[in-house]
Amino acid sequence: MDSRLSRTTLRVRGYHLDGYGHVNNARYLEFLEEGRWAYFDERPRLAAFLSRGDLAFVAVNLNIDYRRAAVAGDDLEVLTRLSEIGSRRARIHQEIGRVSDGKVVASADITFVLLDVATGRAVTIDGEIREAMAQLVLA
Amino acid sequence: MDSRLSRTTLRVRGYHLDGYGHVNNARYLEFLEEGRWAYFDERPRLAAFLSRGDLAFVAVNLNIDYRRAAVAGDDLEVLTRLSEIGSRRARIHQEIGRVSDGKVVASADITFVLLDVATGRAVTIDGEIREAMAQLVLA
Amino acid sequence: MDSRLSRTTLRVRGYHLDGYGHVNNARYLEFLEEGRWAYFDERPRLAAFLSRGDLAFVAVNLNIDYRRAAVAGDDLEVLTRLSEIGSRRARIHQEIGRVSDGKVVASADITFVLLDVATGRAVTIDGEIREAMAQLVLA
Amino acid sequence: MDSRLSRTTLRVRGYHLDGYGHVNNARYLEFLEEGRWAYFDERPRLAAFLSRGDLAFVAVNLNIDYRRAAVAGDDLEVLTRLSEIGSRRARIHQEIGRVSDGKVVASADITFVLLDVATGRAVTIDGEIREAMAQLVLA
Repeated sequence: MDSRLSRTTLRVRGYHLDGYGHVNNARYLEFLEEGRWAYFDERPRLAAFLSRGDLAFVAVNLNIDYRRAAVAGDDLEVLTRLSEIGSRRARIHQEIGRVSDGKVVASADITFVLLDVATGRAVTIDGEIREAMAQLVLA
Repeated sequence: MDSRLSRTTLRVRGYHLDGYGHVNNARYLEFLEEGRWAYFDERPRLAAFLSRGDLAFVAVNLNIDYRRAAVAGDDLEVLTRLSEIGSRRARIHQEIGRVSDGKVVASADITFVLLDVATGRAVTIDGEIREAMAQLVLA
Repeated sequence: MDSRLSRTTLRVRGYHLDGYGHVNNARYLEFLEEGRWAYFDERPRLAAFLSRGDLAFVAVNLNIDYRRAAVAGDDLEVLTRLSEIGSRRARIHQEIGRVSDGKVVASADITFVLLDVATGRAVTIDGEIREAMAQLVLA
Repeated sequence: MDSRLSRTTLRVRGYHLDGYGHVNNARYLEFLEEGRWAYFDERPRLAAFLSRGDLAFVAVNLNIDYRRAAVAGDDLEVLTRLSEIGSRRARIHQEIGRVSDGKVVASADITFVLLDVATGRAVTIDGEIREAMAQLVLA
C-alpha cells in the first residue's frame, strides 16, 4: 500500500445500524473521523503542528456518496489520503470499502481550512506545515 | 412561512458536542435527519406512499457546508424543503440556523433515489408520487 | 404536574433505532441526558451554581431498567426529578414513558457527586446549593 | 488471560467526547456493546443459538459505575465475561480499563433475559443453551 494512504478497519455492529438494518448515515461520518484520526496518528510530524494548539484543521465541507448499504457483521476498511492542497484549503479523500468483496460502500471528500485558534480565522497554508503536507499528497 | 418549508427546533446539549466544545460533524446529520422526518410527518400524503413499504427514499449523496460552530445552549432551527425533482433523483435542501441571530450554521443538499424495496433498484419517480412531490418543490 | 418534576418529550426516529428496529440502549442515555438538561433549564437558581464553573455535578453511577422496547414513531416523555440528597451524593430519578398508553419504557437512577473542578475531588453538598436542592427533592 | 474472558481495545477519539472533553456517558454503552459483540464472535457455539433467530438475549437492566474520566488519546480495553446464570436471567460483567496504567474507568453489570422472539416472552434458560453458557461462567 502507498505510504501516503492510511487504512483502518472496523466491524459493523448492531448499534451502528438504523431501523432499516443498514448502517446509519451519521455513523459513516464517525467511521470517516476514525480514519482521519488514525491518519494523523501515523504521521507524527503533521500531528505535531496541531498538538501545539495554536492551529487546527476545521472541516468546511463534506461531500459523501452512499454507494451500497453495509449491514451487521460486515468488515469495513476506511482508506484515507490527503488529495489536494490549495493556498487556503486542503482536501482529504476517503473511501469505505467492504473487505469481503472490495466493493465501495461510501466515498467522501472533506475540505478543511487551517484555523488560527486565537483569532478564529482561516490562515494561508504555508511554511513548514505546507512542506509536511506536500509530501503526503496522493491525488 | 411558505407551506412548502418545514421548521424543526432543538437546543444544543453537552452530548451533541465533541472534545472541542463544538457540535460534532456527525450530529449535524442527525439534526438534518430529524428535520426530514418532521417534514414527512407534516405531509401525510407523501408519507403514505412510503408507509406501504414497497418504495423507499434512499440517500445517495450528501453535500454539507459547515459555516459556523454551534455550542452548548444554542437554539437551532432546521429548515427543510424539497428543492428539485428529476426523473430518477430528487433533492432536499436543508439549513441549520442559529435562532438568536439568524446566522446559518450549516447547509446541506441531500440527493435521493426512489428504491423499489423488492428488487433493491432505483425506479423512475412518476405517477401519483411525482404529482404529490411536484406540489412541494420550492427551488 | 408537581413543580418538582420536569417533563420533556421526543418522537422516536429511524436514527434512534438499532438493527432490531428498537431504540438502542445507548440512545436512552441521551434521552435521559436531554431530560436532565431541561430540568436545569427550568431551575435557574440551581443552574446558576453550576454556571460559575467551580462546581460540577458528575455522574458516578447509572442504574437503568429497560422495561419495554420503543419503536419508530413512538412519542416518549422523560420525567425527571431529584429523588434524594445525601451529604456527598445526590440522586436523580427518571422515567421514560410512552405517551400513547402511559406505559413505562425505561426507568433510571443516576447518582451524582458535586465536584470541585479545581481539585477534581468530590465535596460535601452543603450551604446554599444544598438549600436550593432541598426544595426540589421529590422522593 | 482466562479463556472465559474477552478483551477488546479502542482509542478514545474526539467524537467520543462531550463538551467537557470527557468520554460521554452514552458512549461507554457503545464501548460495552462492542465488547459483547466481540465476546459472541469469539464463542461461535453460543452465537449459533442466537443466529437461528428464534431466541434473543435482551438487556433488562444495566448498572454502570463511572470511576474515572477517559480523555482523547486514551487507549481503553473492555473486558467482558459471563458472570452468572439464573433460571431466567443471566448477567455479564464488563470493565473498561485504561491501558496506560491499568486503572478502571468504568465497570458494569448487564442483566439479560432469553427472549422467545415469536411470543415476545422471556423463557427459561435451559437445555443446550444453558450447557453452552455454563462452561463460560467466570464469577
